[in-house]
Amino acid sequence: MSTGFFGDIAKIKYEGPDSTNPLAFRHYNPDEIVGGKRMEDHLRFAVAYWHTFTWPGGDPFGGQTFQRPWFEDTMQAAKLKADVAFEFFSLLGSPFYCFHDADVRPEGKNFAENTKNLNEIVDYFAQKQADTGVKLLWGTANLFSNRRFMSGAATNPDPDVFAFSAATVKTCMDATKTLGGANYVLWGGREGYETLLNTDLSRELDQLGRFLNLVVEYKYKIGFEGTILIEPKPQEPTKHQYDYDVATVYAFLQKNGLEKEVKVNIEQGHAILAGHSFEHELAMANAFGIFGSIDMNRNDYQSGWDTDQFPNNVPEMALAYYHVLAGGGFKNGGTNFDSKLRRQSLDPQDLLIGHIGGMDCCARGLKAAAKMIEDGALSKPLSERYAKWDSPEAQKMLRGELKLEEIAALVERDDINPEPKPGRQEYLENVVNRYV
Amino acid sequence: MSTGFFGDIAKIKYEGPDSTNPLAFRHYNPDEIVGGKRMEDHLRFAVAYWHTFTWPGGDPFGGQTFQRPWFEDTMQAAKLKADVAFEFFSLLGSPFYCFHDADVRPEGKNFAENTKNLNEIVDYFAQKQADTGVKLLWGTANLFSNRRFMSGAATNPDPDVFAFSAATVKTCMDATKTLGGANYVLWGGREGYETLLNTDLSRELDQLGRFLNLVVEYKYKIGFEGTILIEPKPQEPTKHQYDYDVATVYAFLQKNGLEKEVKVNIEQGHAILAGHSFEHELAMANAFGIFGSIDMNRNDYQSGWDTDQFPNNVPEMALAYYHVLAGGGFKNGGTNFDSKLRRQSLDPQDLLIGHIGGMDCCARGLKAAAKMIEDGALSKPLSERYAKWDSPEAQKMLRGELKLEEIAALVERDDINPEPKPGRQEYLENVVNRYV
Amino acid sequence: MSTGFFGDIAKIKYEGPDSTNPLAFRHYNPDEIVGGKRMEDHLRFAVAYWHTFTWPGGDPFGGQTFQRPWFEDTMQAAKLKADVAFEFFSLLGSPFYCFHDADVRPEGKNFAENTKNLNEIVDYFAQKQADTGVKLLWGTANLFSNRRFMSGAATNPDPDVFAFSAATVKTCMDATKTLGGANYVLWGGREGYETLLNTDLSRELDQLGRFLNLVVEYKYKIGFEGTILIEPKPQEPTKHQYDYDVATVYAFLQKNGLEKEVKVNIEQGHAILAGHSFEHELAMANAFGIFGSIDMNRNDYQSGWDTDQFPNNVPEMALAYYHVLAGGGFKNGGTNFDSKLRRQSLDPQDLLIGHIGGMDCCARGLKAAAKMIEDGALSKPLSERYAKWDSPEAQKMLRGELKLEEIAALVERDDINPEPKPGRQEYLENVVNRYV
Amino acid sequence: MSTGFFGDIAKIKYEGPDSTNPLAFRHYNPDEIVGGKRMEDHLRFAVAYWHTFTWPGGDPFGGQTFQRPWFEDTMQAAKLKADVAFEFFSLLGSPFYCFHDADVRPEGKNFAENTKNLNEIVDYFAQKQADTGVKLLWGTANLFSNRRFMSGAATNPDPDVFAFSAATVKTCMDATKTLGGANYVLWGGREGYETLLNTDLSRELDQLGRFLNLVVEYKYKIGFEGTILIEPKPQEPTKHQYDYDVATVYAFLQKNGLEKEVKVNIEQGHAILAGHSFEHELAMANAFGIFGSIDMNRNDYQSGWDTDQFPNNVPEMALAYYHVLAGGGFKNGGTNFDSKLRRQSLDPQDLLIGHIGGMDCCARGLKAAAKMIEDGALSKPLSERYAKWDSPEAQKMLRGELKLEEIAALVERDDINPEPKPGRQEYLENVVNRYV
Repeated sequence: MSTGFFGDIAKIKYEGPDSTNPLAFRHYNPDEIVGGKRMEDHLRFAVAYWHTFTWPGGDPFGGQTFQRPWFEDTMQAAKLKADVAFEFFSLLGSPFYCFHDADVRPEGKNFAENTKNLNEIVDYFAQKQADTGVKLLWGTANLFSNRRFMSGAATNPDPDVFAFSAATVKTCMDATKTLGGANYVLWGGREGYETLLNTDLSRELDQLGRFLNLVVEYKYKIGFEGTILIEPKPQEPTKHQYDYDVATVYAFLQKNGLEKEVKVNIEQGHAILAGHSFEHELAMANAFGIFGSIDMNRNDYQSGWDTDQFPNNVPEMALAYYHVLAGGGFKNGGTNFDSKLRRQSLDPQDLLIGHIGGMDCCARGLKAAAKMIEDGALSKPLSERYAKWDSPEAQKMLRGELKLEEIAALVERDDINPEPKPGRQEYLENVVNRYV
Repeated sequence: MSTGFFGDIAKIKYEGPDSTNPLAFRHYNPDEIVGGKRMEDHLRFAVAYWHTFTWPGGDPFGGQTFQRPWFEDTMQAAKLKADVAFEFFSLLGSPFYCFHDADVRPEGKNFAENTKNLNEIVDYFAQKQADTGVKLLWGTANLFSNRRFMSGAATNPDPDVFAFSAATVKTCMDATKTLGGANYVLWGGREGYETLLNTDLSRELDQLGRFLNLVVEYKYKIGFEGTILIEPKPQEPTKHQYDYDVATVYAFLQKNGLEKEVKVNIEQGHAILAGHSFEHELAMANAFGIFGSIDMNRNDYQSGWDTDQFPNNVPEMALAYYHVLAGGGFKNGGTNFDSKLRRQSLDPQDLLIGHIGGMDCCARGLKAAAKMIEDGALSKPLSERYAKWDSPEAQKMLRGELKLEEIAALVERDDINPEPKPGRQEYLENVVNRYV
Repeated sequence: MSTGFFGDIAKIKYEGPDSTNPLAFRHYNPDEIVGGKRMEDHLRFAVAYWHTFTWPGGDPFGGQTFQRPWFEDTMQAAKLKADVAFEFFSLLGSPFYCFHDADVRPEGKNFAENTKNLNEIVDYFAQKQADTGVKLLWGTANLFSNRRFMSGAATNPDPDVFAFSAATVKTCMDATKTLGGANYVLWGGREGYETLLNTDLSRELDQLGRFLNLVVEYKYKIGFEGTILIEPKPQEPTKHQYDYDVATVYAFLQKNGLEKEVKVNIEQGHAILAGHSFEHELAMANAFGIFGSIDMNRNDYQSGWDTDQFPNNVPEMALAYYHVLAGGGFKNGGTNFDSKLRRQSLDPQDLLIGHIGGMDCCARGLKAAAKMIEDGALSKPLSERYAKWDSPEAQKMLRGELKLEEIAALVERDDINPEPKPGRQEYLENVVNRYV
Repeated sequence: MSTGFFGDIAKIKYEGPDSTNPLAFRHYNPDEIVGGKRMEDHLRFAVAYWHTFTWPGGDPFGGQTFQRPWFEDTMQAAKLKADVAFEFFSLLGSPFYCFHDADVRPEGKNFAENTKNLNEIVDYFAQKQADTGVKLLWGTANLFSNRRFMSGAATNPDPDVFAFSAATVKTCMDATKTLGGANYVLWGGREGYETLLNTDLSRELDQLGRFLNLVVEYKYKIGFEGTILIEPKPQEPTKHQYDYDVATVYAFLQKNGLEKEVKVNIEQGHAILAGHSFEHELAMANAFGIFGSIDMNRNDYQSGWDTDQFPNNVPEMALAYYHVLAGGGFKNGGTNFDSKLRRQSLDPQDLLIGHIGGMDCCARGLKAAAKMIEDGALSKPLSERYAKWDSPEAQKMLRGELKLEEIAALVERDDINPEPKPGRQEYLENVVNRYV
C-alpha cells in the first residue's frame, strides 16, 4: 500500500537511450549482461537513507527548505519515513540501502533509549526487507551530529565520549548483523582536529587505533561476516580529519596491525577534497589490497566543501569503474549514492530523478569500462610500456638479487645510458574517448 | 681570498633588534643560549646549493634573469661556483649546506663521466670544508632534471633508468659519506605520474620500495652513519607524486618494512601544497616517530605551485619550531632553506638578504617556541584537557582490557551520558600571541 | 543592571603587553595616540550581532552546541538578547555594533509582522544606545536564511521575492537611519547561482542592478547620510556569487552607473576564498576609489569554506591596516569582527576572549602600519622604483600625448633597450619584519 | 614538398565514429552542417604556434625533452619551423593559426633587429598562407619571456620598458594586419605583481589603461578591421595578474572607456585557475557583451598551475559551446588550442594526435550544444522559470517605475509572501546527459 508521497508513479523501467521520459532509465538495465555479469550485480546500487530521507535542505547560511511529513523526532515519524524509504527503494529498483542509527530512529535521552529505539526500528526494517527483497549494503553509527561528539568520538579528550561511542557502534554492528548487512562502515566525522593548539595528535591516533581494534574484535565475536570499511575524508567538518585519504588510512591500518582486516569505502567527493582524482584513490586502494566499496557522488570542482551531488560526468565515471573492474569488481561492496538533492529541488519526484540520472551515468560508465577491459584498450599499451621489466636482469634487480653497488657496476660496465620513451598520454586519452 | 662576487662585505654579525643594517642579524645570535642550548646548535642552518647558486631565475613563462659568472657547464665554472658558495657560507655564518650532484658538477655524457666529475668536486669541497669549518647537512641526487628521468627514476617503466638512478644514488651516497654529511635525502622528483592511463601504479610503488631498500642496505654496507630521509611532496612536477605527505610516506615505509630506517625531511611549502599546515606535518612525523629535518621556506597561500620563498611569518614559524622542540629538537637534521630569490632580485647581495631575513625569523620563532615550552603555555592546558584519560578505568579501556560489549554494558549500567567540554581555541590563540 | 550572563566581570581594561590576564587588553589602548589619532577612532571596532549572539554553533555535520537563554523566537527572548548584547559591548568597550534584521527580531509570519517586530526592537536599541553610548556601524537585511530566498533575493526568478526583498531592505534602511547607522551594507547571500543550467545570468545581473539603484535612490529620498556598502564574496552559500570580489563589484557598479555611490565592505575571509590576499582587495578598492569598511576575521588557509575565525596573525594584519591607512583610513567605515567562536568554545567568557584577542592583534597591526607610514619604510623605496615615470617624456607618454607609432619611432631612434631593475622583495619583507 | 618531419602521413580525414585509426577524425567533419552552418565555420579551429612548435618540453624541475631540428635561434631555423608548421596546418586541416612575434622570428639584439626579423618572417608566412589557404586567427606580442619584461611590460616601473613594449605591439599589429588576422590579442603575461610591497597597483593600472588606449587608437589609425581581445588569467607567472577574469577585465575596460572597443579571449584553463567554470566565464562575457574568442584547452582540476592540456571531456565542452552558440556563435573569434603535448609525448605524430583528439571532442560538444538549442532543451525550462517577470507589474518594477517605498507598500498591501519554486537542477543535468 503506497504512502502516496511520490504520487501516482509506477516502478521505474528501462526504456532505452531514446526515451525522454524523466522517470525512466535510459541506460541502466539491471538484467543486461556486461562483461559476463548482470548489470545489477556489477553495480550493486544503494540509496543513502540520510541524504535521501533526513536531510532538511539546510546549508550554513539558511535552514530547512524541504517539507517532509516525517520531519519530527518520534517513533511514529520514523516508521512513516521507513515506509516511504522502502517504497522509494522499490520504485527505483535499488537492490540496497545504507543507514546511520541517527537516520532511522528518534534520538533518545541516553544510550539505553537510543538502543531501544534503534532495535524497534531494526525489527520494522527486517520486515520491510523481507517484504521487498531490498538488502542492506552497510550500516554505520552517526558519531558526529550530537553535541556530545563536538570534540570527536573515539578521539575525544573525554574517555566517557569514547565509551559512549564504542557502545553506540556495538549496537549499530548488532543492527547491521541482524539486517544481514554486507559491510559495516566507519566514517570518522569528527575524528580529527580544529587546532593543534588544543590537540594531542599522537594520543588521539592511539585512541582511534584502539577503537578500531575493538570493532574488529567484536566483528569476530559476533560472527559478522561483512567487511569493516573506513571512509577516508580529508577535512570538513574538522579542519583536518585523521582519515585524510586512502594512503593515510593505510598508514593507520598498518600501524595498528589491521591492514588485512579493514578496507576502504571511497567517496568521489572526498577524493576531490583531498586533492586527488577519484581514480587515484581507487588505484591506491587496489595497490594496497584494501579496496572495498564506493560512494559515487560528485564534488563541485570550484567549491571547497563537500557538495555531495549526484554524479553526472560519464567520462570520469568510466575511469572510476575501470579501476573498480581492474581490481576485480565489487565483492561485498557496492555503489552507494551519498548524494543529496540541491536544496532548491523541492519536488518529491526529484529524489527519483536524481537517482535515475546517477544510475544511468553509472551504467554508461560501467559499460565503457567493461568494453575497454574486454578490448585491452588500456592494458595492452600498459603492458608494452613496462615490458622491459620482464627481462631476467630487470627481474633480478626488482627481486633484490642485485645490490646498489652491483647495479652501479653494471651501469658503468655496460655504459647504460637510457633514452626516454614516449608516454603517449594524448593517444590514450583519445582511445578512452572512443568508449565514452 | 675573496671572489669579489659579493663586493666588499664583511661577515654578517648580530647587531640586535634595533639595527636597521640590512646586512646584519637582528635576532639570530648563534651563541645565545635558548632553552639550554646555543641557538646555532638548535637551528642548524643550511644553505641550499641549488636555489642559491644554480637557479637561473626562470619560470614557465620566461627564462634566465640572473647573470652569474659561473653559469656554464664546465669544471672550471663548477669550481668558481664552489668558491663563491663557500665564501657565501662563511659570510653568512651558515654552519651547513646541502647539494644535489647536478648542482655541483658539470653534466657528463654518461654515468662514468658524471661520477668522475662529481668525485673531482667532492675533493674540492672537502678541502673547502676543512678550510672554513662549514659542514654538509645532506647530500642528494638530482634524478629529475635530465630528460632521461622524464617518466620517473626508480618508478620508470624502463629498468635501465632504474639502474642508472640506482648507480647515481650510490655515487651520491659515497660523496655524502666522504664529506661527512649528517643525512642523505631522497626527493622523488618524478616518482609519481602524469596520468593513470599510462601508469601501473602498483608496479611503480613496488619499484620504489625496492629502490629504497637498496639505499638502506648500502647505507649499512658502507657504514654511513647519517639518517636516510625522504622528502614528501604532493605534486609538481608530476600531477601526483608518490610521496604525497608524511602519512603517505609512513604508509609506504611500513609496507616496505622501513619505518625504523628512514625518516622525513619536511618542507613547509610542500605541506601547504598537500593541503596541510606545516605544523600538521611536523606533528604527524612526531606521532609516527619519523621526524628528521626541515626545509624552512614558505609557499604563497594564493599560488597553486611550489613558490619556494624565504620564510617571513614569525607566528607561523613559532608554531613550527614548537613542534620541532616538542619532538626533542633536531638530531641529525637541521633547518635547510630550500628558498630561492624572487627572479627580480638581481643583486648578489639579495642572496645574503634573503637568508638573513629567514634566519632572523627562525630565531624569533625558536625563541618564542622555547619560551612557550619553558612556561608550559600550551602543554599545561593540553594535559588538563586529556586528564580524564589518566583514570584507571580509562587506561583499562585504552590498553584493550575491555571489549566493545563490556564498554557498552558499562555505558548502559552507569548511564554514561557525557556533556561536551570547551575547546578554548581562542584563548589558546591569544596565549600564543603573547609569545610572538 | 547586569544580566549575569558573563558572570562577575568588570569592563575590560588595557593592562599592557606584560599582562597575562586573559580578560585584559595587552595592546588595544583606546586613548593612545597613533599617527595623530586615538586608537579607538582609527580602528572603529564593531561587534557582529549575528555570530556573537545568534549563532547556535552548528555546522553541516552537527547541530547546536551553544546554549543561550535567548535561543527562542520570541520578542521577550529578543530583548533579553539585546540586554546581553549591549552589556557585552560595554564590557568590551566596543564603540560600535552591526546587525541584520533577522538577528534582532523574531521572525514574523509575513512582511508586516517582520516590520512591526523590527520597529519594536529598534526602539529598544535606540534607548540602549542612548544609555551606553554604543553606536551602530551598519545595519543590513538578511535575505538568505529564510527558505523564500533559496533561489536568491533581488536575483530571484520570482519577482515576488524581489519585491519582498526590496520591502525588507526599505525597513532595514529605515531602522539603520533611526539608529544613526554610519553605513548600510548589502551582502548578496544568495545573489548568485548553483548551476547555469537553470540560471539566466544576464537577466539576474540586470535585476541586481535595478535593486541597487532602488537602494541608492531611497537613501537620498530619506536623507540617509551613511555610505551604501556592498560586501564581496566569491562563493558559499551559492556555487558562484555575483559579487565575487572587489573588481567584480566595481565592474557591476560601473555598468549600473553607481561607482560614485556605493563602496565596498571587504572581508578578509572572502578575499581568501576568492584567491586573493586581503591586502590585494584593499589595494584594489583604493585604486578604484571605492574603499569603505572591513570585516576583520580570518579564513583558514587549508579550508575551502568560510571559517569566520577571529584574526590572530599580526604580520598579515599590519599589511592590511597599512593599506587602510595608505587610503586615508576609515571615514564612515570601521573594523567589524565578522567572526564566530569555534563551536567547541562553549563558555560565555569565550565571547569576550575571542574579541579581546582580535582587538589586540588589530592594535598591534595598526601600530606597525602607522610606524611604517611615518618612517616611509615602504613608500620611499616605492617612489624610487617608479621615479623614472616622473620624467617629462614618460609623463607625456602616460598622458596620451604620444601615439603608439610615435613611441615606436622613439624606441627605434634612441635604441631604447632597457635592462631589468631589481625588485628587492626579500629586502622589503625584512623591512616589514622590523615593524611586526 | 614535405619536410618529412611527420613521416609519411596524408591529410587527416574524417572516417566516422567507428574508426580506430588514431590519425583520422571520428567526429570532426568540416563540411557537415550543424545548426545551419558548416562545422568548420562554426568551430574556426586554430593551432597555437608557440606550444606546438616552440615549446621545448621543459617544466620547473626539468629541461627540454623535445628535439626538433628547428630549435635554434636563427632565421634559417625560423623558416624551417614555418615550413613544418604550415605543413602541419594542412595535414590537420586547421583553417587558422595564431602566433606571438617571439615564436616565429629569431630574437634580435634590439627592437630594430626584432622588427626586421619579424618582417622577414611575415613575408614568408604571407606566401605560405597564399599557398595553403590557411589564415591567421590572431597575432600577439610576447611581452613576458625576455628578462627585460621581468617586472611587467605596460605596467613596468621603468617607462623605457613601457615604450619598448608599445613599440613591439605596434610591429605585431602591423604584422597581424599584413597577414589578414581576424583579431589581435593582448595577454598580460607579467602585467600583475609578485608582491604589493614593491608595487604601486593604482599607478600600474593607469599605465595599463593608457597602453590599451594606444592599441585601440592605432587599430583605427591603420584601419585594422579585426577585434582587439584581452585574455584574462588570474595568476602565473605573477602571483596576481591584473586581468584576473572576465569581470575584472570588464571593470578595467569600463574604467578606461573601452568596453565597446575590446573583447575577451577566454581560456578554459585560466577560468579554472580563477575559481570559475569555463561556462561561467563565457556566460559573463555574453552578459557584458564582450565575448570574442576562446582558447579551448583544459586545466587539470588537481593541479594549481596552468597545465594547458588538450581538452578531452565532451560533456564539459558541450556546455561551453552551448554558451558560445547562445551568444550567437563566433564572429571574428574561433577555437584556438592553447594546448601543449605532455613533455613525455616525444613522437612528432603526437602533435597531430593531440589536435585530432581535441578537434573531435569539440565537434561532439558542438553537435550536442546545437541540438540542445534546436530542441530548446534548456531554454524552454529557463523561460518558464522566469516567466513571472513578464507580467506588467514585474516589468514596471524592473524598469524603475516603482520606488523602493512603493514596492514596500505593495508588499504590505497585498501581503506578498512568496513560496519558493523548485530549481530542478538534477532534472536539467539529466536532460543534458541525453545529448552528450
